[in-house]
Amino acid sequence: MNKHQEQHLRNSDFITDTVIGLSDGLTVPFALAAGLSGAVASNGIILTAGIAEIVAGSIAMGLGGYLAGKTEIEHYDSELKREYDEVEAVPEKEKEEIREIFAGYGLSVDSQKQIVEELAKDKDQWVDFMMKFELGLERPSLNRARNSALTIGGAYVVGGFVPLLGYFFTDLPMQGLMVSSVLTIICLFVFGYFKSRATGQPPIQGAFKVLIVGVIAAAAAFLVARFLNSAV
Amino acid sequence: MNKHQEQHLRNSDFITDTVIGLSDGLTVPFALAAGLSGAVASNGIILTAGIAEIVAGSIAMGLGGYLAGKTEIEHYDSELKREYDEVEAVPEKEKEEIREIFAGYGLSVDSQKQIVEELAKDKDQWVDFMMKFELGLERPSLNRARNSALTIGGAYVVGGFVPLLGYFFTDLPMQGLMVSSVLTIICLFVFGYFKSRATGQPPIQGAFKVLIVGVIAAAAAFLVARFLNSAV
Repeated sequence: MNKHQEQHLRNSDFITDTVIGLSDGLTVPFALAAGLSGAVASNGIILTAGIAEIVAGSIAMGLGGYLAGKTEIEHYDSELKREYDEVEAVPEKEKEEIREIFAGYGLSVDSQKQIVEELAKDKDQWVDFMMKFELGLERPSLNRARNSALTIGGAYVVGGFVPLLGYFFTDLPMQGLMVSSVLTIICLFVFGYFKSRATGQPPIQGAFKVLIVGVIAAAAAFLVARFLNSAV
Repeated sequence: MNKHQEQHLRNSDFITDTVIGLSDGLTVPFALAAGLSGAVASNGIILTAGIAEIVAGSIAMGLGGYLAGKTEIEHYDSELKREYDEVEAVPEKEKEEIREIFAGYGLSVDSQKQIVEELAKDKDQWVDFMMKFELGLERPSLNRARNSALTIGGAYVVGGFVPLLGYFFTDLPMQGLMVSSVLTIICLFVFGYFKSRATGQPPIQGAFKVLIVGVIAAAAAFLVARFLNSAV
């Protein structure tokens, strides 16, 4: 097991996917609600729009992510088939490609030849090696893609409801915006912190990045919607 | 140059980023507008919400993508420093890790030793090798991250305006939804086709995937918003 895998295993995939979905789910619904707060008269419209966005965004993210994962597996399988065909059809060319990889790291011609001859003894390990070291591909897992899509999509829904909460318990859009901003800014920071930790970044710095994206998106949406509304 | 890089160079990064931004930009604004069409009485609110979403989504995608790219570079640099430190502090352990990689591909003990000794002669090439083949990391480019963020964010804005067009030129939300659906479905298919070609997937199949995500997200948002509206 290499260090990268160790690092990866320390964080459960489920927790990583959950904080990614939560922190991303906060951003766009928050900005949309903020934008509408500067332009409409009733909290009901903001809630409807916010919920429609959460439904749309979670499906786009979850289903889109799942289908992208399936595509990646198909891509891996077609590259795998191509490598098997090439190892069969043009073995000398494939051997030359392996020698070039090691030549690039300053290995002697003798070593290059020896590596290639030993690898080529077993077609499966030869192709495995080409997939990983020439093409940089590792076999993706369909289970993982499905679980990840469901977790991220579900967490996006939960995260998206945080900015909407402020509009449930207030009467006017600008009051809703005040409550929503306080709640969302706290959550963006907290989930940004855990998102960064889960993905191996410096957590405080990462928390500020997530917060900044959310606040800039919300401020821009608010200003544009208010401008449009006063112009019409 | 390996096959993967060749494949990559055939498509300009700019075109790839543009079609990704366009096809993603169509999806959520389309679904949001569809959702609101089942719940509000005026096209003005749909346009305001749609534009607020486009502003929010493009900033979240563009700025978020740029900051993620910067984080990736910091991560690479910190791993690079760690590898240099480890090669200095525990060279035997690092050599063992390389031998294990090649043992996994069935190479003889002699070859493993020979590779390691030759690699370890030059510290830079040793660390380069560890970064790529042990950790699977390649140095990301900041320029590329910035250009990509700007292109995807900009294309998201352009893509997002397609579903809104229908509401500009009609009087009632349901009329807007009809025009918007026809326009967006055509564009989802066309951009999905080029997105799939640009990312090396089967284009027709990929076009249907992009189309299906967009249509399901829009239908779900429409049904949820209409249900909420009739329940309140």
